[in-house]
Amino acid sequence: MTAKRLTAKGEATRRRIVEAAAQLMYEQGVTDATLEDVRAAAGVSGSQIYHYFADKQALLLAVIDHQTEAVLDLQAPHLGRLDTIGELRAWRDMLVENQKRMQCRGGCPIGSIGSQVAETNPEARLAVASGYLRWEQAIRAGLTAMHARGDLAGNPEDLALALLTALQGGLLMAQIHRDVRPLEVALDAVIDRIGSARGPVPEGGQ
Amino acid sequence: MTAKRLTAKGEATRRRIVEAAAQLMYEQGVTDATLEDVRAAAGVSGSQIYHYFADKQALLLAVIDHQTEAVLDLQAPHLGRLDTIGELRAWRDMLVENQKRMQCRGGCPIGSIGSQVAETNPEARLAVASGYLRWEQAIRAGLTAMHARGDLAGNPEDLALALLTALQGGLLMAQIHRDVRPLEVALDAVIDRIGSARGPVPEGGQ
Repeated sequence: MTAKRLTAKGEATRRRIVEAAAQLMYEQGVTDATLEDVRAAAGVSGSQIYHYFADKQALLLAVIDHQTEAVLDLQAPHLGRLDTIGELRAWRDMLVENQKRMQCRGGCPIGSIGSQVAETNPEARLAVASGYLRWEQAIRAGLTAMHARGDLAGNPEDLALALLTALQGGLLMAQIHRDVRPLEVALDAVIDRIGSARGPVPEGGQ
Repeated sequence: MTAKRLTAKGEATRRRIVEAAAQLMYEQGVTDATLEDVRAAAGVSGSQIYHYFADKQALLLAVIDHQTEAVLDLQAPHLGRLDTIGELRAWRDMLVENQKRMQCRGGCPIGSIGSQVAETNPEARLAVASGYLRWEQAIRAGLTAMHARGDLAGNPEDLALALLTALQGGLLMAQIHRDVRPLEVALDAVIDRIGSARGPVPEGGQ
């Protein structure tokens, strides 16, 4: 029982460290957030950090996992049911409202880390890629259902990836401009494409 | 005449410093690329760097300007004439080929800097925003011409921003996945939307 209580306490401490690291990396960038900053923000000792994480790399990978879970949790009420234009628009509205609430700060919790680590840290890049894949699959499920019903002209795999890509561009450009408009228009364009029963026009056509 | 020759030489030296800094920031990230790295890569003395740039911030702003020019120069054969679906597809193909040639490394030359500096360096964030606006305006010109001809159902300003946003997401996700597919499908989706003379479907419609 003592062991069990210690384990629960240990999990809580580990989680506090990861959440502090996620917040600092979000605010200061991955490179500038030091283990000492994390230690102070989490209110733990240096030996406690090293008990859970061998080094900053291990902590960074835990942050990417944590942020992936947070992103999927936040969107969970929508992600499983993106199988009508109305549901896609409701998801889009939720994403836009969320950025307004954040004053367009921080960008995508995993995409912004991805951009920082892509050329210097292959292991972290792959962890972000893995997070993207989970997100893409959750979006794809609804489009596959639309396609099976005959309501989608086009490839649901391509259009699911296009939605996530538009969302990533929208979060980045909203962060740079401190304005949700890039996010709104990019998601609207892809959702309008999904809603176009006619599908793409032929090459050179208008 | 001597003064003139010195000025030309000075401009060449300044340019060499900016190009070395751009390359290092692209490879290592903005924070990790030190002035000493830039000095060594450019083959100049420390006093030469400080002759042209008061500090790393001044150099970073020059890099953002330089990369904006490079991006616009690379796309110049396309950007002035994006007023048909065929021209939009040719631009899309050029962007995809360029990423293939780069093996999807580096992401967008200005977007990747933007993501790194957005929360910590407002002046650099605004410089990236300014680069985005120039790019967006160049894209918008063609769509405005399409709209004036009656060939575009939708707002050309929104769709120009949607194209740039899809491109930004595509470059980021191509960089993370080391695969051009996100770039391809996101640009295709927005171009298909632009080519859909019917425009968006009403709320709840299919």
